[in-house]
Formats: sequence, C-alpha cells, structure tokens
Amino acid sequence: MNGSFRWVLLCLTLASSWFGCASGPEPTRTLAETEPGSSGLLIRNASLMITMDPALGDGPLGIVEGGDVLLEGGRIAAVGKGLDGSGRKSLDARGKIVMPGFVDTHDHLWQSIIRGCAADRDLYGWLDACVYPMGRVPFGEQDAYAAVRLATLGLIGTGVTTVLDWSHAFNPAFVDGNLGALRDSGLRFVFAYWVAPPGGCSEAARVQQDLVGNGLAAGFQVATHPTLANLDQLKEAVRCAEKLHVPLNVHLGESPKDPQQGQIQALELSGALDGQMLADHAIHLTDREVELLARHRVAVAHNPLSNMRLASGIMRLPEMHGAGLRIGLGLDGGTGDGPDMFADMKAAVGLQRARLESASGYPGIADALRMATLGGAEALGLDKITGSLTPGKRADLIVLDPGGANIAPRWDWPSQIVLNGQPANVEYVFVDGRALKSEGKLAEGQDKNAVQAAEAAARRVRAALGDRRGLPPAGHE
Amino acid sequence: MNGSFRWVLLCLTLASSWFGCASGPEPTRTLAETEPGSSGLLIRNASLMITMDPALGDGPLGIVEGGDVLLEGGRIAAVGKGLDGSGRKSLDARGKIVMPGFVDTHDHLWQSIIRGCAADRDLYGWLDACVYPMGRVPFGEQDAYAAVRLATLGLIGTGVTTVLDWSHAFNPAFVDGNLGALRDSGLRFVFAYWVAPPGGCSEAARVQQDLVGNGLAAGFQVATHPTLANLDQLKEAVRCAEKLHVPLNVHLGESPKDPQQGQIQALELSGALDGQMLADHAIHLTDREVELLARHRVAVAHNPLSNMRLASGIMRLPEMHGAGLRIGLGLDGGTGDGPDMFADMKAAVGLQRARLESASGYPGIADALRMATLGGAEALGLDKITGSLTPGKRADLIVLDPGGANIAPRWDWPSQIVLNGQPANVEYVFVDGRALKSEGKLAEGQDKNAVQAAEAAARRVRAALGDRRGLPPAGHE
Repeated sequence: MNGSFRWVLLCLTLASSWFGCASGPEPTRTLAETEPGSSGLLIRNASLMITMDPALGDGPLGIVEGGDVLLEGGRIAAVGKGLDGSGRKSLDARGKIVMPGFVDTHDHLWQSIIRGCAADRDLYGWLDACVYPMGRVPFGEQDAYAAVRLATLGLIGTGVTTVLDWSHAFNPAFVDGNLGALRDSGLRFVFAYWVAPPGGCSEAARVQQDLVGNGLAAGFQVATHPTLANLDQLKEAVRCAEKLHVPLNVHLGESPKDPQQGQIQALELSGALDGQMLADHAIHLTDREVELLARHRVAVAHNPLSNMRLASGIMRLPEMHGAGLRIGLGLDGGTGDGPDMFADMKAAVGLQRARLESASGYPGIADALRMATLGGAEALGLDKITGSLTPGKRADLIVLDPGGANIAPRWDWPSQIVLNGQPANVEYVFVDGRALKSEGKLAEGQDKNAVQAAEAAARRVRAALGDRRGLPPAGHE
Repeated sequence: MNGSFRWVLLCLTLASSWFGCASGPEPTRTLAETEPGSSGLLIRNASLMITMDPALGDGPLGIVEGGDVLLEGGRIAAVGKGLDGSGRKSLDARGKIVMPGFVDTHDHLWQSIIRGCAADRDLYGWLDACVYPMGRVPFGEQDAYAAVRLATLGLIGTGVTTVLDWSHAFNPAFVDGNLGALRDSGLRFVFAYWVAPPGGCSEAARVQQDLVGNGLAAGFQVATHPTLANLDQLKEAVRCAEKLHVPLNVHLGESPKDPQQGQIQALELSGALDGQMLADHAIHLTDREVELLARHRVAVAHNPLSNMRLASGIMRLPEMHGAGLRIGLGLDGGTGDGPDMFADMKAAVGLQRARLESASGYPGIADALRMATLGGAEALGLDKITGSLTPGKRADLIVLDPGGANIAPRWDWPSQIVLNGQPANVEYVFVDGRALKSEGKLAEGQDKNAVQAAEAAARRVRAALGDRRGLPPAGHE
C-alpha cells in the first residue's frame, strides 16, 4: 500500500482524534481565543495583504491592497475590502503589511542556552562540544523551561507563529519543562520527541497523550537518527511512529560525512519511507535519493543559516523543488543564530544565487515567502489550519511596519520583506487570534525576566559541565 | 617607482593637507566634538570591550572585561579599568559590550530609494532596470538628500560609524544633495566620486576642495569603471586620481561576465595599479590576478549580502586573505538590502563555510569582527584615526546590549555578536564622540521624517521614469 494513502486512511479511521494526522481535520480545541468573550478584531485598511491564497487576491501570493481581515473566535472569519467593523475592536493597518505568521519547520528550542558555543566548529565538532555533553548533566525542568521560554520569545519577536520543536528530550523532567514553556508561549507548535530505546515508545505515547488538547499543540512526531549502525533503533522508531500514527522526523544528509553512514539505505531497510517523514537539511543527497524522497512524499526542512554556520554545505534547493518535494524553512536552534526569519528567507534566496550565479531560478521572492509560511505549514501537515489568511483557518498572522529606515521607501513590498526586513519591523504577532507581540513589544514585556532565567539556567547547566567560559560570575549580570 | 611608496611620498610632500592621504596624519578639523565645551564622557564598567587593539587587551580582538573608555574632545582619551570619572558625564555599560563602530567600505547611499527594485534580476539586469535609468531623470538635490539621508539613518541604526559612499554623481545638484546629507548625518565618510569625462576632473577637484574641512569628510576617491572598451576614460580617471592624490575606486570582477571585459588588462594598461586602489567585489579573478592585486597593495571591499542577492557569486575570501590583501566589508547600497552589518559579517563567515564545507578556515569570528571594523578602516586608509579603541583615535564606537531575547544568554559574546546580533541590539553609536543613537533610538527621532521625505523623493524620481510600481498614490502613506 502506498505510504501516503495509508496515512490518509489512518487519519480517516481515527477521525475522532485530529492529533498527528498530517492532513486531517483541524483542531477543535485552542488555548486562547481572540479577545475571549469579545466580538473579535477587525484589522482595517492594510496597505498590503499577502494572503498566500491565490483565490483571495492577485498572483501566487494572493495580494490584496487596502483590505481588511476579521478575526473571530481565534479564526480568520473574513478577508476583503470594507468589511463591517461595527461593534468590533479594530486595528488600523494603514501603511502596514498583513501576512500569515512564519512557520519554523525545524528548531531545537533548548539550544538558546548554547548560543555562541563552539562557533568555530562544523556540525560534528559543535555537536561534540555543545550538544552531546548536555545529555550528561542534570538538565532539569526549570532549566529546560528557561531555555525554551527564551527561544519562544525570540521566535515571536521575528513573527513566527508555528514552530516544530525537535526535542532531545534529555530526561523526563527536561521534557516537562520543555513542554511547559511551549504551552506558555502562546505559539502553535509541533513536538518532535526523541524516542530512545528501550521503552521509549511507551513514554512517547504518554507525552503524546498529555499533549492532546494541550494549548496550541498541533502535532507530534517521532524524532530519531537514521544510520546503518543503529538500524535496530531506527526500526523501533519507525514502529513507534506507525503505532502513534505520527510522522518520523530525521536529520538527513546534513554533514558531508553523513552519506558514509548509509542513512538512505537505513531508511529503506527500516520501512521509514512507507510512513510520513520530515527530513531536516537534506543537503548531501544524490539525484536518485532526491527522487526517492519525492516518490515517498517526504517533506523537507531547509535551514540555510544553520547550514552556513555549521559548514554543512548548500542544499540543492531548486533541484529538490523541481523534484516535487514540499519544502519549508527552519531556523534550527542555537545554530540558526538569532531568530530572524527575514535573514533565513534572504539566505534561502541568496545561497542559491551565489551558488548558481543566476537569479532566475527557484526560489524567487514569492517562493521564499511561501516557503516561510504556507510551504512550512504543508511540510508540517498543518496547511488546513494555518499558513495563509484563508477564512476558516486559525488566526495566525503578523502585521509588519515597512516604514522603518531599513526597509522604506515602498517599491515592491514583498521583495522588501525578504531582502530588507528585520525582526524589528514586526509590529504585531497573532496566534489563534491572540496578540503575542503588540506595537513592536512582546506581550507583558516578558523578555527581561526570560533572559535572566536563561542566564541562570545556562550557569547551572554549564557549571555541571565544568565549563564556565563566557559566564559572568553569579549575581553579576 | 613602487606605487605605494610614491603614495607615501606624496602624502609627506602634502603634509599640510591630510585629505586623501591614505596613511597620512589624522584630520584636525571635526564637525562635532564630544559634548562641546564639556569635559567628556566616561563609559564605565563595560562587561566586555572589544578594543580591536591587541596591545590593549587579550587576543587578536584586544578583549578587556569590566573596563572603561574615556571620550574627550571627540577622541578616545583613555581605555582601561577604574578610570577617573570625576567631573565627567558617565554612561553605565554594565552588562553591555563596547567596541569600535562598523566601517562600511562600499555603499551607494542614494540607492535606498530603489530598495525592492528588480529583486528577481542579477547584477546587469538590476543595473539596467534600477540604476542606469536614474541618470536620465531629474534626480535633483532634494531627492538625493532625502535618499542619502534615509540611508545614513539606517547605517547609524546598525552601528556603522564610517562609510564610503560610491556616488554615481548623476548631476551637480545631485552631488550637492548627496554631500549635504552625508554632512548632516554625523557619520565619518569617504566620498568616491564618479569622474565622467570631459571636464570631470576639474569638477572632481572642486568637490574635493569643498570637502576639505567639511564635517567628518575623511577622504575622497575617484570612482570609475575599468573595461578595455573604455580604456581612454579609465586613463583619464587614473590621471585624475594621481592629480588629486587620491585612490581610485572600481568595481572589479563583480559579475561572471566581467572577465570578458578585460578589466584587469585595462587596469594594467592604464597604470591604475601603480596608484592606490580600492577594488569592490573582486569575485571573478584568477589566482594570477589575485596575486597581481596583492603585489600592488590593492584594498578590497567584500559585499557578501549584495553578492548573494545579485547572483554575483562567492568571493574567494580565504584565498585573497592568504595572498595578503587588505579586505573590509561593505553593505553595497540598495542591494545590501537592509543596513545590517551583523548579517553582513555572518554572511561573510557562512558563505565560505557553505562553499568549502569547512569551518576551520578564514574568516573565523574574530576575523569577521576585524574586517567589519579595523580591517575596513585599513582598506579605506583610515586606520590611523578609526577602527579600534586605541587612545588618540577619534571616538567612533558603539555600545551593544547583548541582553535581548535574540542574543542572550552569554557564552562567547564575540561569537554571539557575529552570529546572533541584530541592529536592534545597537544601543549607542558615537561618531567623533557625538551620540547619533542613544538608548536604542536615533538622535532626535529623525527616522520618520526621513522616511516620508524619501517616499516623496522616490515618487518624484520614479514618476519621471514613468514607473509607479509599488508606489502609493500621492498623499497616501
């Protein structure tokens, strides 16, 4: 049976639970409604709306000039011109751009506390110095909460509304803190949980169960790492993903050294390709392997900023898009190096142009905007509920101010978003209709406390490692 | 006679005029002193100072933890710990980073008003669509002022303190507006003036003369474009640069098509390599050509963000550094796409890592910081007066707040500046001791007016082109 067909069948069979069904019905529970108890919010007179829905406006971006969007009950109720705003709160978006929030398809949120670590190393050098050691220290609930909390604030700052958090799940307390911070963030999230044998799948099932109906949890995935040397572990993860009816999430061909590990062969032998899969990075692949992934409808998370910093190489993005793969953008945790989806889009465009010495191929400006929004939602199987301003979808959207000295004057705003935009241009961020950033500030000004808590967590975790590089003495900020 | 030796001799001969002498004595005139009439400013307790002077602190960056810097009379008077602050204004920099301001070695400031233009084109496509037509419209003083003014505010926002403005000098009124905005910006600047025959050099001499003692004008260069087809024009520019005792400034090997124009041969035939020269981009060069440039002590402006956007290619930065070339970073006008020196440094590092799939080569983190500051000053011949916190140099420096959600917690701050920094982290910008940005805001909140003026200028200039793409109707912002 064809893998994706089997997937759809499973989702239909399990229609009472939306959870984990990549193309299933949208969630019916939500943490925060638009202005609970109120009659909604009308965003009026947006000088430009990028709806990402060609049915709603012009061109592939579904452009509408001078339009309104109505949020009600956490959803987008209507998009158009001259919508009735009587009895509703309103937000004047004249001179502003309204567009779907960004979807970050690959991140490791705890890694905010290792920013700056081993900045002179490539992927495996950085993993050895900054990531693997974290599994050997008491990285508890409070520390995980602080690290993930900080990361989510950074994401909100740059206009991300949905994030996939690939969690190393170092220990159960860590997972509790990790999920607590995700829940409190107000972001829509997919949790990719590292399933370590033995007994990993039972624990995964428990975590998945806890998440159903939990705030804005929008999906669960089984995270693992495919190599021939660990084939048994991979097979167990594949069985687990199948049992839980969720996608597998793997780092694939990230380092030039990865092909020697037989990753693709391991995926084939384990049956992983018969289920749903999200592959991260996917740089070092042959043409045949790209075709194989496309045939199995594997989705891909592209992380250009991380790939540059970690010397991973340049993903053959145009070729992979040409093969029909669904591709979203990711910031990739501590190596994404500053939560900046504008820089990520710009790098996605610029890396290919620099590599090919041509500006005519994929991705163009519109492609980059799509990858960062609806394309990411598709890669996460959430395009029925987010990624565009289509009425009926959840109200995940951002308002940009293009009037800053870094981006004005107006010529072609979609291009200016990708090429000139900075996180500081993000004025409002709505998730599920709730404002997480307003007038350019994070809700409740939480960032200062979050930074202090993350500094303290970094101090504890690194002290346990015997590493105090760069840390200020306790009590000195 | 060796070119650079001849240069030094000229400068010694002309010791009464500092202007244009790349390694000459520092300027004695300055537009703005530190707190005129006051006794200076003490920046105290900086958690980290990156002095860029190994004699002042640890390692190649000259790191000082918990130090002070004293500004007096527009200069850096002292750097150290526990400096005497009695009777002086002071700024508490606890928790902050103090470092030299950035040096932008290649920019076309008027191009702020063509942001977003032809974002889907490569270099020559973009020049045809967005740059060359500007020479055929009435691009007057007011428009040039507005465009350049906006660009300078963006530069200040990201912590640039010195900029080289390569001006297309479309007409005399344009030049007046261009220079007026530079003068009013408070930035230190070098003006590279497009010398068009006939009579161009007389006009250049007049502009150069006007600039002596003019605000923070720190240098003058003759801008031209070398091709075999325009060899006579190039020879005239070379003679002009020689006559005015200033460097030549050329775009070199920017496009993959450029080598067909015989640029290097034209430079050799014209005698250009015997004088001082700043070469911009320098991507498409053979090993022999790189050696030739190094032998002639040509300086290079590297513009990684522009090279990505315009599909120009990837400069062989490690090889060129290895050959001994002095290299600074540039944002390159409308194609730098948003004034963000952090993104530029990150791209300089990441492009090479992605290209070579290795993180061990040039540039490392410290190299990127050096290129963006002292290296840029060296490329402009201004390293005697700016680019490091060395006492005696002019007080061009910035204060960064690394406590934002995008950059904290502290591990290795120099790495976090390059990899995580955003313009919003720039809290103070001092040029010649005068604060152009304070508490994260531009002095006098000028950006809103500047944006409106630039919008109006863009409307006028593009209307003259018959192009109203993306422009809002007049009166509608």
